[in-house]
This record gives sequence, structure tokens and C-alpha cells, in this order.
Amino acid sequence: MRLNIITSNRGKLEEFRAALVPLGIEVAHLPIGYEEVQVDTLEEVVDHGLKELRARGIGDLVIDDSGLFIDALKGFPGVYSAYALRTLGNRGVLRLMEGAEGRGARFTCCIGCSIEGSEDIVVCESCEGQIAKNEKGEGGFGFDPIFIPEGEDRTFAQMPLAEKNAISHRGKAIRSFVEALEERTGQR
Amino acid sequence: MRLNIITSNRGKLEEFRAALVPLGIEVAHLPIGYEEVQVDTLEEVVDHGLKELRARGIGDLVIDDSGLFIDALKGFPGVYSAYALRTLGNRGVLRLMEGAEGRGARFTCCIGCSIEGSEDIVVCESCEGQIAKNEKGEGGFGFDPIFIPEGEDRTFAQMPLAEKNAISHRGKAIRSFVEALEERTGQR
Repeated sequence: MRLNIITSNRGKLEEFRAALVPLGIEVAHLPIGYEEVQVDTLEEVVDHGLKELRARGIGDLVIDDSGLFIDALKGFPGVYSAYALRTLGNRGVLRLMEGAEGRGARFTCCIGCSIEGSEDIVVCESCEGQIAKNEKGEGGFGFDPIFIPEGEDRTFAQMPLAEKNAISHRGKAIRSFVEALEERTGQR
Repeated sequence: MRLNIITSNRGKLEEFRAALVPLGIEVAHLPIGYEEVQVDTLEEVVDHGLKELRARGIGDLVIDDSGLFIDALKGFPGVYSAYALRTLGNRGVLRLMEGAEGRGARFTCCIGCSIEGSEDIVVCESCEGQIAKNEKGEGGFGFDPIFIPEGEDRTFAQMPLAEKNAISHRGKAIRSFVEALEERTGQR
């Protein structure tokens, strides 16, 4: 089997490659975009993306979308995390948290996969944590410098990649996706 | 001619009715949603909405989308204004402006219209202004209490509706739309 990974992020591509190649799945990178809709859940974004790509005749594909959901901000930036990062950045989010009651938050990652002649797979996994008081660390990307996963005192950006992947939303989602794929295809 | 106004906002519906009925255009309210995409401009949101509704067989329709674009926040909340209002509210936006260099902003409104057998009309108009230091006024809706239009010292929410409509992004866009419609249809 060969799967087209649709992402503009090389880091994500490598994570998929590392998880899928050992299963005997060929991984191709398709650097195209898909239509993201304004909805409240990542699952809907991914569902819609799969349908749109399928309508364009692109099959055997994998897409993913992630977001940071902050309790004190009613889930902001959520499905609009990429836009909030581009405009407000980590500093803007920290400013919004000044005086907030509680700093609870979660990162969520949804992975969608559409395979010819089979039902779509959509899995979502989260990593609970807290918003840090300041940006810390140089690793990772996006909101990693302000997210401290549960049970840790370091931000994602302060953790070695392998350590982050072991507990991160994307790491968990990739493992769930691989399980679902194995069940579906019987491949191992 | 009869046009279907697609909006969930009664106030907007009344503004369209007031502008179109005098031109001999029948106005019907169609309380349905359309797919909003994650793109950077309101024009793209409206373009896409028209196409999607047309694909569903809904014709002779008018949709509109508005947003507040703040210079110091790189255009945030922009096309995601409705979501930012729901999660952060006016207070969240004011907090993001603390210590900002400059308070310049603009409200933009885009109106799209698709008429059977005719090219789509899309018009966009803006109202320049400043973000206020505090929320002021009880009128209007959305970000009106924190937006002071150019040449004014009151916020939109402190102005009588007729006064606001004379200078607002939506007032201007409705007038541009009516002009475009008259040119297109020869109706007056």
C-alpha cells in the first residue's frame, strides 16, 4: 500500500514516515493544500478535507490538523490555532492569559485517511496540560514553548523530540491511526 | 426580482430589506448556513459561499461577511472575528492591545450576490478607525463598543443606528451593492 501524506510541514511528514514505513506502507509526500472550513471541531475540518480531496480525485491520502484549546479562553485558539500563531503568536496568547482563572489547556490532533474502496478513518487524540507563564525552550514549533504537558515541568519545546512524541497529541494520534489502519488492512 | 438573504442576524436582514425594497426588489429571508472556509480574506469566504450555495441549487441569493482587522495584531481577528468575539470577546481584544504601538483598525464588509444567468457580484467596503481604550456604548453588536470610526470620538455602539449606517462598512457595502445591482439589472 502507498499513502499520500498531505502536509506543508516537513516535521509532520517525517513523523508519519517513521510510523508507517515499518508497517510496509510506502509514504509519498503530496505538497498540495485542501480547503479548511470554519467549524468548531478539528474532526469536522478533517472530515471535510477528506471529502474535498476525494472529490478532486485524490485518493489513498492522509491529512492531519491540530489545535491548542485553552479552557479559560473558551477553547480559543482551537481550530484557528495556525491563524492565531501567525497573528498573535505565543506572546499574544500569554497576554490573553493574564489574570485568567486556571491555565488548563489541551493540544488535540486529528488524523484522517481515505483509502480507495474503504471507509474513511478519522482518529483524534489529546494531550492535557497547562499554559506556561512564559515562553520556554527552543525545540518543537508553534505553541510548544508555552505548553506544559500534564505531569511535567518542562514545556514541549524543552523536551527532546522522542520524549515529546511519546506523550504528545500527534504521537498518540499517529499510534491510534496505525492501529486503525492495521485493523482495516490486516497489514503489519 | 426576488432575492434570498442568507443570514442568521435579524439586524442585517432589516438593513438589506430597507435598501432593496425601495428598488422594487422582493426580499426573502433564508435561515440556512453556508460553508465558511479558512482563508485570509473576506472576499474569498464570500466567493466560496456563493459557489457552495449555488452547487446546492440555491439561487438568487445574497450573503455577507464582516470582520475587524487590527493593524497592531497583523489583521487579527479578521475573517475569524465571529469566533474571536465568541471566545475572547471585546475584553480579550482590549487585552491584546495593551502596550500596542498604534490602535489603527478597519471594519470590512463583503457582500456577495448570485443571480440566475448573471455573473456573481462581490463588493467589499471598509470603515477606517481606532480601537478604543475601553468598551463604550450599548448600541450595535459585536465589536461595535470598541471601534471608533475615523473623525469621531464615539464608538459605533454609542451612535444612533442611522448615523452608524451612514459611515459603516456595512452601510457602504450595501450602497455599493445596490449600485452594482442597478447596473446589472437596469432596475431602479
